[in-house]
Amino acid sequence: MFDGLSVLRSPCQLRGKVQSWRRVGERVALIPVLGPVHEGHLDLVRAAHLDTCRVAVCLVDLSGSPLAREIEADIRVLEAAQVDAVISPAADSYSPDGHRTRLRVGGLTDVLCGKVAQGCFDFALLMTLRLINQTQADLVLMSDVQWQYSVILSQLVGDLDLDTEIRILPARRHGDGAVCSAEWHALPEAARGHAAGLARILAELAAELRCGADPVACCKNGAARLAEAGVEGLEYLELRHAGTLARVHDTVLDGPARLFGAVRLGGLRLVDSVGVV
Amino acid sequence: MFDGLSVLRSPCQLRGKVQSWRRVGERVALIPVLGPVHEGHLDLVRAAHLDTCRVAVCLVDLSGSPLAREIEADIRVLEAAQVDAVISPAADSYSPDGHRTRLRVGGLTDVLCGKVAQGCFDFALLMTLRLINQTQADLVLMSDVQWQYSVILSQLVGDLDLDTEIRILPARRHGDGAVCSAEWHALPEAARGHAAGLARILAELAAELRCGADPVACCKNGAARLAEAGVEGLEYLELRHAGTLARVHDTVLDGPARLFGAVRLGGLRLVDSVGVV
Repeated sequence: MFDGLSVLRSPCQLRGKVQSWRRVGERVALIPVLGPVHEGHLDLVRAAHLDTCRVAVCLVDLSGSPLAREIEADIRVLEAAQVDAVISPAADSYSPDGHRTRLRVGGLTDVLCGKVAQGCFDFALLMTLRLINQTQADLVLMSDVQWQYSVILSQLVGDLDLDTEIRILPARRHGDGAVCSAEWHALPEAARGHAAGLARILAELAAELRCGADPVACCKNGAARLAEAGVEGLEYLELRHAGTLARVHDTVLDGPARLFGAVRLGGLRLVDSVGVV
Repeated sequence: MFDGLSVLRSPCQLRGKVQSWRRVGERVALIPVLGPVHEGHLDLVRAAHLDTCRVAVCLVDLSGSPLAREIEADIRVLEAAQVDAVISPAADSYSPDGHRTRLRVGGLTDVLCGKVAQGCFDFALLMTLRLINQTQADLVLMSDVQWQYSVILSQLVGDLDLDTEIRILPARRHGDGAVCSAEWHALPEAARGHAAGLARILAELAAELRCGADPVACCKNGAARLAEAGVEGLEYLELRHAGTLARVHDTVLDGPARLFGAVRLGGLRLVDSVGVV
């Protein structure tokens, strides 16, 4: 049942809205959105509706960053998608001055992106945890372009015993294979080929790994292949356990493995990953 | 309204109990108890009743530690005090194997006890946050013997935007001035004079500080006075801002200050503190 979109501008308004749903026994799904709304986010909204949830989308405002954008246009798109609430917070009420809490999740926040950019998950984790607390969401939906982040968040939610499911859905991709992400949108047109190149080579390497290629050699070879294809700024290319993010060295994979890649392009980190088994 | 005490042994039972209260609009107070129940805890229970709350007490089980004790006796005491629920969890369900989350609160978890024993708040913070999430407590009550911990917890709860008030009440003291605490109970009879000595000298120093004594000289002098009085194992004696825990060096105090002391006695850390202004 869709009875119009509410635009909420404070945690207090958000709590009030959620309570009105809870009172009549409705479930709540939260979709955090960084950067402009794209088709990938609308996939998440549709998944939430299938779960018969009220859908709250949080537009995280990174004003001053390359991801600054038109919130009004996003709100119209979300309304058309029958989103129930958009949280478009004033930055200060969501990331209060003077916060001192740092969340570390051992073995998860300090690898991959967390290794090349220490503390890079701090802001997002704090924001997401605040939103979960404010909405008491039954469900948080994110796409697998944020695989590492979703693994971190799942562990955190379990460790804190929150009554919230973190659900990961396959990312939407552009026609050239590049993953839909805030960073892709922020790239200059001319640089978007790098995203497609990264996606293509990750897929090729995953196919070779599935056929028994040696992970270490494969990643080394992949780095050379990316350079050949003109994809610059490689930060990492690693095969890891999909659930624990432990590094996989062996040819015989003993669990679900995932190949993770990141390139640094003009101040942006473009990440992508692909399931191997 | 007291309708009997429920002993709950899993997070699931706890959530169910709390939901039954919430459904009829009742408020919930949480009192975490480390070690044996003593009169200080019953003060907290009485304060919760004044606030017309349902009272849930969590008996944190440190089996194998010097604080291991008879849970059954505690439960009878709490029932007499009209506590509504006692959470006496199996250790594994409350501190699950494989948790990886570490909570750091900058400037708060790394001073005083956190400096002499790095990471000493990790377990307690994770446990308390899990309990707050499980109970969605409106109110958490603790005594000011845990002043540093309560400041950390208040900041954490604010940073995570939990809808929970952390309320600190004056600690109950024994006839000789020693503060009621789990550690005091775990001390051998003969060593309890140290706790009284610490309390007495903290009170004397606070009086001198109120009269304008220099903080640095006063703390140095205090260390000597403790040694003279036979109180051994001093770990710290520091004047700090009561709210931010920033160190106070100036004679002119620009906010509420508190004098903190800790001694290490036979494997236990005995802490005490006193408000100066």
